[in-house]
Amino acid sequence: MTQLTRADCLARDAADPLASLRERFELPPGVIYLDGNSLGARPKAALARAQQVVAQEWGVDLIKSWNTAGWFDMPKRLGDRLAPLIGARAGEVAVTDTTSLNLFKALAAALHLQAQGETAQRRVIVTERSNFPTDIYMAEGLANWLERGYTVRLVDSVDEIPAAVDGDCAVLMLTHVNYRTGYQHDMAALTRHAHAQGALVVWDLAHSAGAVPLDLHAAQADFAVGCTYKYLNGGPGAPAFIWVPQRHQARFNHPLSGWWGHARPFAMAPAFSPCEGIGRALCGTQPVVSLAMVECGLEIFEATSMDALRAKSLALTDLFIELVESRCAAHPLELVTPREHARRGSQVSFTHPHGYAVMAALIARGVIGDYREPHIMRFGFTPLYTSFADVWDAVEILNTILDQASYDIAAERSAVT
Amino acid sequence: MTQLTRADCLARDAADPLASLRERFELPPGVIYLDGNSLGARPKAALARAQQVVAQEWGVDLIKSWNTAGWFDMPKRLGDRLAPLIGARAGEVAVTDTTSLNLFKALAAALHLQAQGETAQRRVIVTERSNFPTDIYMAEGLANWLERGYTVRLVDSVDEIPAAVDGDCAVLMLTHVNYRTGYQHDMAALTRHAHAQGALVVWDLAHSAGAVPLDLHAAQADFAVGCTYKYLNGGPGAPAFIWVPQRHQARFNHPLSGWWGHARPFAMAPAFSPCEGIGRALCGTQPVVSLAMVECGLEIFEATSMDALRAKSLALTDLFIELVESRCAAHPLELVTPREHARRGSQVSFTHPHGYAVMAALIARGVIGDYREPHIMRFGFTPLYTSFADVWDAVEILNTILDQASYDIAAERSAVT
Repeated sequence: MTQLTRADCLARDAADPLASLRERFELPPGVIYLDGNSLGARPKAALARAQQVVAQEWGVDLIKSWNTAGWFDMPKRLGDRLAPLIGARAGEVAVTDTTSLNLFKALAAALHLQAQGETAQRRVIVTERSNFPTDIYMAEGLANWLERGYTVRLVDSVDEIPAAVDGDCAVLMLTHVNYRTGYQHDMAALTRHAHAQGALVVWDLAHSAGAVPLDLHAAQADFAVGCTYKYLNGGPGAPAFIWVPQRHQARFNHPLSGWWGHARPFAMAPAFSPCEGIGRALCGTQPVVSLAMVECGLEIFEATSMDALRAKSLALTDLFIELVESRCAAHPLELVTPREHARRGSQVSFTHPHGYAVMAALIARGVIGDYREPHIMRFGFTPLYTSFADVWDAVEILNTILDQASYDIAAERSAVT
Repeated sequence: MTQLTRADCLARDAADPLASLRERFELPPGVIYLDGNSLGARPKAALARAQQVVAQEWGVDLIKSWNTAGWFDMPKRLGDRLAPLIGARAGEVAVTDTTSLNLFKALAAALHLQAQGETAQRRVIVTERSNFPTDIYMAEGLANWLERGYTVRLVDSVDEIPAAVDGDCAVLMLTHVNYRTGYQHDMAALTRHAHAQGALVVWDLAHSAGAVPLDLHAAQADFAVGCTYKYLNGGPGAPAFIWVPQRHQARFNHPLSGWWGHARPFAMAPAFSPCEGIGRALCGTQPVVSLAMVECGLEIFEATSMDALRAKSLALTDLFIELVESRCAAHPLELVTPREHARRGSQVSFTHPHGYAVMAALIARGVIGDYREPHIMRFGFTPLYTSFADVWDAVEILNTILDQASYDIAAERSAVT
């Protein structure tokens, strides 16, 4: 049994240099929000920004806002603001479309690059069976339509990845932090291995950006995509991002060649001519109101650093693991998130035979996590707005639910499949 | 010289059964907004809806809003609400992604259908050189990546379309109302001709939906896409729509196979299995705040009918043509929009040797139209919020600018290329 008390947690909060950042978010009273890995909480600034875009920029300034309010430039301007969080440089990131679509572009571009050189005969995309499914679906979709016999090779464990990246592998496509387990890959080592085998690497940072320090250039990654509405707090379904390092930009080609990626979109030429730079990752007109919200999330990160956030994130997840394992030791909970810091994202997942019902009971009492098949209760820890006392209180409520068996097994299966 | 007076226009407004709909829009004072064909004006309801989504649904209800606020269902719910405006049925329309991307899906699906039967050897996509460029670019992108030798055949005039749809043509892809000239195709006749030649037809309704009556089923069209932020007033860059008639849905396949198109997205299965119905046109997570605005535009249409709107639209464009041609007869303006009602959309375009400079002068005096190369001044007439007096006043200002030559030729070329 741990010796920690709630008072210890309050003391940690009092000493937390990041504690004041919570004030930049609107969080409903009576809620401990541990689902920022699915939908980040709302920055307070987002409401005024939404009002400004809708009332003034759209309502009053109308069409001229494409220029005067910077609507046209927003994908690149937000990309530049996001870049430092992932180890990218200015001019390498665009905020646009969805993660699925950006993955399609990056994967298509990677296959296109590989089709040019000595690797032209490679026909395999390697990824994990446990990857977030849409990544696999998009790779399947691209592979099936390319008609040159591409296949998606699914590996069943991290250990199998190196061997799967063989002489047939054109691209290794991985999600850096697993959405279900919170496992964090060694980006630099896997990229180095893939390059040694002649493969390119596409990284999905959906559960990494804003959650763990990233240095895409140091890792020599080839392409990356990610999500703005999780740890970056950009708002529900906000446009995703894509990173194309400068060294690959001149040869970045993909089939989604819309007018926003054209060198001179308003020349209205009938032939496509891609622009220079990251702009060629753009396709069609972007949803301005949702896009504008992304900036409200990004600007909060400028008040701190990813290293400081990482230190608090690990302290929060360490604390959660310690408290659950000590206080709920009588119950059949199993940790599926790595204990090793270097292999852990900013979430903690435990299995429980009635995980769905237990999570429903937690949510009913204001502890918002979520559930993922099979049996996994998933808790995300956003150091920007989660306190150590939150962790204590969440575990206290979990323990009470488990001790009292106050969860509804009968209703368990209703919403899952 | 016309005998019409401003008083006549005011009398028409007084007798206009649609006049009160203007009250549902926020329009800035001192502005005559004739650019609703580019960015529709803001429905008053949109501000409160934005506040509700951001403050309550995102800020307070957080992750559960995917279900409780209907975020997940919004693409299909809005599609059902849009369907009557285009002659579609419930379950056939989704509001999602961008027009460019939806065109890519529809075109890919059409080529896929054609690849199955007696038409399997057809390799040509026919469209107009004057089509909105992104449509051509997306077709090029798809054709170049399919590797079976597809080409995009550009025709230079409407008269050439029938002959271009020959035995090599897999798909005819047209924008129903031309963005530059306002020319409206005969959808039923061209579809009938294409079908007789064994081709499928994809219609882009960007400048048609909410602007002219449409009956996709009567025309036996195959696929359609369109825009919500022009005549539908859905907000800047709001997600676009795609129509797949029920008869094609079971074989609707495209490479952008993301998790929102999966039969059971939360089963997290590693293999893609498309859902039944229009849902298979979906791909990734949608920008909720922008998507929600679309509904504020659509609900206004339920207070009237497309026939009533069309009658007023033609009255407005007839009046504009008559007034410009009579009052500005001394100036080198040339009408490029068809006089024939059946061939006209809801805009009027005139060329002027200094069209760019004249349009800049108009905008400076509060008459907001826009400019398109070459030399075209484009005026959109949205019968929901444009009055007959607006038309009079706009022409009066145009005439004054031309009579006084008060436009800046020197600055003309700066912003165009």
